[in-house]
Parts: sequence; C-alpha cells; structure tokens
Amino acid sequence: MNRANLNHQRPAVTIDVVLFTILDGDLKVLLVQRKNPPFRGRWALPGGFVGCGESLDEAALRELREETNVSNVYLEQLYTFGAPDRDPRTRVITVAYYSLICADFADVRAADDAQEARWFPVRRLPRLAFDHQEILRYALERLRNKLGYSNVGFQLLPEKFTLTELQKVYEIILGRKIDKRNFRKKLLQLDVLRRCPERRMAGVHRPAQLFSFAQQKFSARKVKGILFAFR
Amino acid sequence: MNRANLNHQRPAVTIDVVLFTILDGDLKVLLVQRKNPPFRGRWALPGGFVGCGESLDEAALRELREETNVSNVYLEQLYTFGAPDRDPRTRVITVAYYSLICADFADVRAADDAQEARWFPVRRLPRLAFDHQEILRYALERLRNKLGYSNVGFQLLPEKFTLTELQKVYEIILGRKIDKRNFRKKLLQLDVLRRCPERRMAGVHRPAQLFSFAQQKFSARKVKGILFAFR
Repeated sequence: MNRANLNHQRPAVTIDVVLFTILDGDLKVLLVQRKNPPFRGRWALPGGFVGCGESLDEAALRELREETNVSNVYLEQLYTFGAPDRDPRTRVITVAYYSLICADFADVRAADDAQEARWFPVRRLPRLAFDHQEILRYALERLRNKLGYSNVGFQLLPEKFTLTELQKVYEIILGRKIDKRNFRKKLLQLDVLRRCPERRMAGVHRPAQLFSFAQQKFSARKVKGILFAFR
Repeated sequence: MNRANLNHQRPAVTIDVVLFTILDGDLKVLLVQRKNPPFRGRWALPGGFVGCGESLDEAALRELREETNVSNVYLEQLYTFGAPDRDPRTRVITVAYYSLICADFADVRAADDAQEARWFPVRRLPRLAFDHQEILRYALERLRNKLGYSNVGFQLLPEKFTLTELQKVYEIILGRKIDKRNFRKKLLQLDVLRRCPERRMAGVHRPAQLFSFAQQKFSARKVKGILFAFR
C-alpha cells in the first residue's frame, strides 16, 4: 500500500440491489426508472453511493428504502463489479446485493432518484442501465444454485403447503419444468419436510397432503453436509 | 444516485488476497510483513490499492505479484469488506480474493511494500493488521465449504494418488480427522474417481490402489447437481 494512493484516483463506490420475488406465477425483479443522467429514463437496479460513515450493508438497505420504499429485507452480498468502464461518468465500483422476498410485504413506491419502481419478470426485461444486465444474470445464477443448499425455496410458501406448491416455486425460480417423481423422491430422501396431520381439499382432486418445513432437521442436514439440487 | 456524491467523500478501494497452500502437512496462508504504517511490522494479507484503469481482478493479480512475486494464479473473488473504521487512516473498502495453490510453483519473495513474505500455518497465525483476521476466517470457511461442491480437494494431488493421500488433503483443509470408511464410501458413491491399472508399493503394507480424478464424470455430476460434503 502506497501512501500516495490514499489521496489520488479514488473510485466512487456504490451498492446495487437485486431484489427477486414471485408474483403472478413469475420470477420478478425490482427495477427503478432513472430520473437523472446517465441513462436517464432507462430502468436500473435500485442502488446508489455508499455514505461516508455507513457500512456496505447499511448503504444497501438505505438505498433500497430510499428508492423503492422497501425495507426490513435480509440482503446478502452477491459480488463486486469493478470493470473500469462500467460507468460513463467516472470510475465506479459497485458492491451488489441480492435477496428473494415475499412481494406481499413489500409496499413498492418510487422515491428519491427513482422516477418509478416496478417488478419486472426476469424473462421479459427492459434494456437496463450500466452493466445491470450482467449483475442481474449473476444474481439469478446464484439464486438458482442456492435452491440446492438452502431453504430459499421454502421461504415464500405458507407454513403448510403441498408438494405441488413447493415444486411450483422451484420451477418458477429455475425457469423450467422439473420431473415430479424425481422432485418428490429427492425431497423425501432429504427428510426436511414434516407431514401435517391434515390434508387440503382441492376441487375434484384427491385431498392433497400438507407438509411443513422442518427447520431443525434441515439445520442438522446442513451441518452434516447433505445437499441436494435440481439443476 | 446523486451527482454531488460523485465528487465527495470517495472511499479508497483496495484488494486483499488470501492465498492458501498445503505445505509440510499443514494448511498455510501467505502473509507479508508491512514496511509502512499503519501496523508497520505487523503481518498482513498481500494487497493494495486498485489502480485507475485496472479491473479488480487485475489489481489482485498485480498486488500479489508485486508484494510476493507469486503470479499465474487463478484468484476467485471472496467478499467485500467495508466497515467504516476498518482502516485507521481513512475509509478503505477492500475486495478480498482467495485461492488454494500448489506451493511448489510459487516462488515466494517479498517486494514492494512488503518487508517479508512467508507462509504461516492457519492454526498458528501472528497478530494481523486491519481486519485481516476476519477476512482470513471468512476465506477459510469458504474454502472448506468448497470441498463439498468442487474439485478443489484434488488439485493439489499428483495425477495418480491413493485414497489415503486424498483423505489427507481433505483432513488438512478441514483441520480435523475424518472417518476413513465414511470418506471412501462417499467418494466411491460419487463416482468421480478412475481406478488406475497399477498399484503403489508402500513399505511393508499391501500395495495401495492408485486413482485418478475423472474430470468428465465430475463435470457431468456437477451439472446434475450431485454434491457431497464432509462437514
């Protein structure tokens, strides 16, 4: 570390947030429309500059709240993007965060530098500002991988759910159909579901078995390193 | 994003590199002794400021080379640490990288801002500068997790190896003994090893079966999402 470097050529540092949800049977991402140049009017990930006295995590939560009104979210750091030319104004390094949240609890409203804030299906995105397309692609890959070693697939479901509902969540996140028999076999082998005493009536069909997620069993499995994936 | 922020309160951005190796039957990390304040004389991770026109990856490789003479390494981004008070001089955000390399190919020599460069066993570390202890702990956790879903455990072995040698690598990285029968069962189930036609003589013992790593099989398993772990 060279002392001279402390005073020269400092890049600007921002955070950007990739917030996913499932809405209307689709995996969606929260975007804001930019009010100011560069890329004025273009859709972008919510984000902004890291303040002097705040941590990166704090900056991410603050910007998300300021631009989209979404708060009380658990954000996970994704990756830091720092290509020298990723911002036309100056050198800007951005620390990206991501999360999958339940849209019901998110009262999305545009504010601050955002002209509008809206959920977009990841399959039909508008053209994005900066390298946000690349950041989003990376976040999507991480989210899909995470299905294989975390409870991320369960957190959008009600406490009691059917295997069909659970499979649907996995399919929406993965963006493709998965084989029903295979899915059930793997899940039951994994032994992280608890069979509820009750069943749910579903039209003319046979009442469906309800399950709940066994957090304790899951934690134990995780410690033992039993992982699964559907990719 | 506020335009005013572009010109004010920019943090300094550095990279730090956590380079692991196995040497003398121990998991070791490469540290440099600081020539300048702050923490003059204290051991630290190799690292330094990100240059104006270089990417983060390029900065990591350059700093590693300049301070330790180590080059031709595949570095993976680990995490970005940005607590406001992590550097006593000013706000410094650091993007950490890590890798596990074969020490034979690393001609470690201190240079630039480093007074000395040396491998330290992760179990017996000196007191480190900045928050480098925390960064190292995080890297170690990631490396150990990676044993479960990558071929990181194989890359330090010769082309042909015995199961005992492979188990030894896992044990050194995990920092604990693992059950031999369990280890062999899991590995053979995983079906990523190829049995070599020859055996290796080993003193008075029965000649040991040699194996090689089946990269193609492994890639196929990975796509199918078959993972394993020994934690």
